[in-house]
Amino acid sequence: MKIYDRDGAPHPARVRIVLAEKKVDLDQIEFISVDLIAAEQKQPDFLVMNPIGKIPVLELDDGTFISESTAITEYFDNLDGNPVLTGKTPREKALIHMMQRRAEMMLIDAVDDYFHYGTPGLGPALRPWRMPDWNGAKEWGQRRGAYAIQNMSYFNDILANAPFLAGDTYTMPDITLFCGLMFAELIGLPIAPELNRLRTWRSTMADIPAVKNRSGQAPRAEDLARRGA
Amino acid sequence: MKIYDRDGAPHPARVRIVLAEKKVDLDQIEFISVDLIAAEQKQPDFLVMNPIGKIPVLELDDGTFISESTAITEYFDNLDGNPVLTGKTPREKALIHMMQRRAEMMLIDAVDDYFHYGTPGLGPALRPWRMPDWNGAKEWGQRRGAYAIQNMSYFNDILANAPFLAGDTYTMPDITLFCGLMFAELIGLPIAPELNRLRTWRSTMADIPAVKNRSGQAPRAEDLARRGA
Repeated sequence: MKIYDRDGAPHPARVRIVLAEKKVDLDQIEFISVDLIAAEQKQPDFLVMNPIGKIPVLELDDGTFISESTAITEYFDNLDGNPVLTGKTPREKALIHMMQRRAEMMLIDAVDDYFHYGTPGLGPALRPWRMPDWNGAKEWGQRRGAYAIQNMSYFNDILANAPFLAGDTYTMPDITLFCGLMFAELIGLPIAPELNRLRTWRSTMADIPAVKNRSGQAPRAEDLARRGA
Repeated sequence: MKIYDRDGAPHPARVRIVLAEKKVDLDQIEFISVDLIAAEQKQPDFLVMNPIGKIPVLELDDGTFISESTAITEYFDNLDGNPVLTGKTPREKALIHMMQRRAEMMLIDAVDDYFHYGTPGLGPALRPWRMPDWNGAKEWGQRRGAYAIQNMSYFNDILANAPFLAGDTYTMPDITLFCGLMFAELIGLPIAPELNRLRTWRSTMADIPAVKNRSGQAPRAEDLARRGA
């Protein structure tokens, strides 16, 4: 198998935690680094694998490409017949799926928009594939960042019901939120000090072996330093 | 059970096709109509059910709320132990999930943005919950419409490989794309005449009993006429 991704980027980190949790033998996976700052993910060769032009992409040994962090997560989680990250019963599966989409829409997607519009993002090479510049683009990006910050309170509240977003064990939405908050903090959107439950949850997540020992943790900061080059 | 939705709106239509395909007894479901034009879905009572403020939402008999059309689809599809819309094997599940996200991101989400920014959308009551007006808002909405149109070719191409988006039978991504294209056509983004495979596929979809006989098909046009009131 091959995985096209980038060390330290937030979505690849989601999949690398999954690989560690599911004890996938990393020797059977070739990791291929995609140069995001050079917009490699928007070029024709890459778009054959994923027309949306985003990492990560999994290539199976038969040449099938699977894009979307959540689809890749489902694949590995179901492969051993013992799904622990995406739920077992219909009710569990639905609630995990729902919370995962909330962690995307209410946090990681908004942080991504903040990064690309409210800050210099990944630099000029990607610009043709983003929304056109307009007067309010930066303001809009900043509002998206404010939306992400505001939603951190929602997740803090949810954690009053259970230790993890969808119950007593950590599952796919926790991985999404953890990587989203890691990304947010790196680009200047930290968790507010008063969100105690969210902070405690983050420490608990950071100590989970699969989270702590995932492969590929080279800092994204190195990439960020390159973007202006 | 209760379902909070709106006759004729595109996302509720996705779930109503699922209910028909899975032969869920509609007598056990109370449908509660949400007044989208009055922004009922953005009010505090609704946000308790779904903090994202969108329909549809399923309420189980124990009071659990499940939002997201895809999560609701998974719930009903898995409930009888015979998933036919979301896949059986790990590979099937992953590919169906991936294509479903493509049908959302490459089509129905872009059509939604076109509707809300490139046209008068659902009118003034919803405005406080949309992005702020800026000089380029309408242009951006129109570009999102153009992106949806451009992506119709992608789905037309995909249908060269198999009769449906993820194989030989129709599954969740076909439902998403079908409802997205129905919505697109209603607001002035029809399928181009030369996209023969996509047009044939749409006719095939329209003839599937669960698609044809789904509940609640009152035209959205009635809603659209109200938005300026």
